[in-house]
Amino acid sequence: MQRLIWTVIAAFAMAIVLGPIVIPWLKKLKLGKVIYELGPDHAAKAGTPQMGGVIFALPALVAAVAFSYKGGNWGLLLMCLVSALGFGLIGFVDDFLKVRRHASEGLTPKQKLLPQIVLSIALSVWAYLHPQIGPSLRVPFVNVEWNLGWFYIPVMVFILVGTVNSANLLDGLDGLLGGCALFDFVTMALICVALAAADPVNAGSLLNVAIFGGAMAGGLIGFLRYNSHPARVFMGDVGSFFIGGALVGMTTVTRLSLLLPIIALAMVMSSVSDLIQFAYFRATHGKRFFRMAPLHHHFEKGGMPETSIVAMYYIATVMLCLVALLGFVA
Amino acid sequence: MQRLIWTVIAAFAMAIVLGPIVIPWLKKLKLGKVIYELGPDHAAKAGTPQMGGVIFALPALVAAVAFSYKGGNWGLLLMCLVSALGFGLIGFVDDFLKVRRHASEGLTPKQKLLPQIVLSIALSVWAYLHPQIGPSLRVPFVNVEWNLGWFYIPVMVFILVGTVNSANLLDGLDGLLGGCALFDFVTMALICVALAAADPVNAGSLLNVAIFGGAMAGGLIGFLRYNSHPARVFMGDVGSFFIGGALVGMTTVTRLSLLLPIIALAMVMSSVSDLIQFAYFRATHGKRFFRMAPLHHHFEKGGMPETSIVAMYYIATVMLCLVALLGFVA
Repeated sequence: MQRLIWTVIAAFAMAIVLGPIVIPWLKKLKLGKVIYELGPDHAAKAGTPQMGGVIFALPALVAAVAFSYKGGNWGLLLMCLVSALGFGLIGFVDDFLKVRRHASEGLTPKQKLLPQIVLSIALSVWAYLHPQIGPSLRVPFVNVEWNLGWFYIPVMVFILVGTVNSANLLDGLDGLLGGCALFDFVTMALICVALAAADPVNAGSLLNVAIFGGAMAGGLIGFLRYNSHPARVFMGDVGSFFIGGALVGMTTVTRLSLLLPIIALAMVMSSVSDLIQFAYFRATHGKRFFRMAPLHHHFEKGGMPETSIVAMYYIATVMLCLVALLGFVA
Repeated sequence: MQRLIWTVIAAFAMAIVLGPIVIPWLKKLKLGKVIYELGPDHAAKAGTPQMGGVIFALPALVAAVAFSYKGGNWGLLLMCLVSALGFGLIGFVDDFLKVRRHASEGLTPKQKLLPQIVLSIALSVWAYLHPQIGPSLRVPFVNVEWNLGWFYIPVMVFILVGTVNSANLLDGLDGLLGGCALFDFVTMALICVALAAADPVNAGSLLNVAIFGGAMAGGLIGFLRYNSHPARVFMGDVGSFFIGGALVGMTTVTRLSLLLPIIALAMVMSSVSDLIQFAYFRATHGKRFFRMAPLHHHFEKGGMPETSIVAMYYIATVMLCLVALLGFVA
């Protein structure tokens, strides 16, 4: 636990230092975010630089590698790193093109989805074949393992692509995704510590995954210093995809992907509300189910202040994370 | 730990339910806060009801009692409850008089200080004579016990009165005291769990103190749903004194009062900045050291947005709490 705490502190310190270096630089490069035209009244946010995700991503990577246990315990951590970096890179390309083209859209949805699916297939096969992971998922609270066989691959591709894009959708209000993800990473880190205590054979590998969670948490705490309302920087797709990749990486290597609808309900609801909105719009030929999707914009359009929505999401996420932890502590 | 998590969830649930019952009732009783005339531009906050502290205080008390281990383990918990309730009651009288008199001042400073000192002496003597506490303080990080002898009494009176009034001073921005205190209670609860694991004789008593910390944390998470910016209710003196009493109660029974300058630095700085401002004003015949005291108003007068100040205080408190935890985990 001491090592985990030091990881959080180190990643936090790097992110806090990185902020005042990166933010003016992003501004200078005229990386001001082009506010999505259909969004609620966010004109005040034009000019806020995006791509700020590097403020937590770099510290998280450095801290995770620096504080990890070396030797034969790197397999699970490596997959987390590849997942976070891989999806983060796709987001980076998207952000970069937005900036170059001075438009609110970089890659087309298809151009984003294709590399995501390719990466997800690669990660799923890797996990399927990995001796410490394999084709079964833990079912939370009931101590059952659910062996999916080869069906594991398409299920995991769905979970990986879904999580990453859900994280992206949740990134719509100051501090919203960063804070909710922070609680998720703390929870996953604590769960990994609990799993390690119960599984001496894989303890080293699992503790390295906990270290990764701590590194993400520390980086995000530092990032929130600059991203909480009123945000001085946005994380951009590089940030939200990195978060999604890191989180789903952690649940993949621990076989705990079925925990995502609990600890990451905020992300899941973003996707689900988007799908409901789309399907209802189609079915009714133009009626809206929510005032606006994803869900957090529905609350915003209803007159709830942005900071209240974010607080509500934080509080709900903390409580759901506590419920998840109930399944792993004595 | 499961019991601790259930305590948090139960206290949270009660506070969430209590909010929409208590807030309109406080408004109806015309308990609108009279905004302190010298404060920064907070005119928008006039009319927000105070005395909202009951929203977390009652759930915390009920959850702590309901989830505590019964039998011979109640000594330390009882002192926490008396400290929180006793100081909270002084705050309640103050709030009640403000409302009755429709003024921003209820009790005079002297009228507040006298019962605080009396209660502090009683608690200090109780702790001094208590077989599980006694006249020594743990020195953090160095595993040393510092036996103060009879000098323990005046030192503890100073710490008790100081903590309670520092908490009161920190209660100046939406969600500020509630959030910072939340992290303190979580930290103290975890420290109590760690102490209990290392001390089988007192484990039951210490776990009950952890339960109390969890109950306070849960109550505060629920309260923050209504108190985070823009606040729909303020906690009032009943809330801030209750928090101060609960926190210093926990550090007293664990002999960890020397941890307060770390985990409760935000509170300490509020008092210290007030004292510096006062002394400097006297010494220079009218010059101000800070733009305004306590410290959070100094940042506010400097143009920092309220939500940014609160986020900064949260983040600093979390990091300091992690540093404190380093002294208690393996």
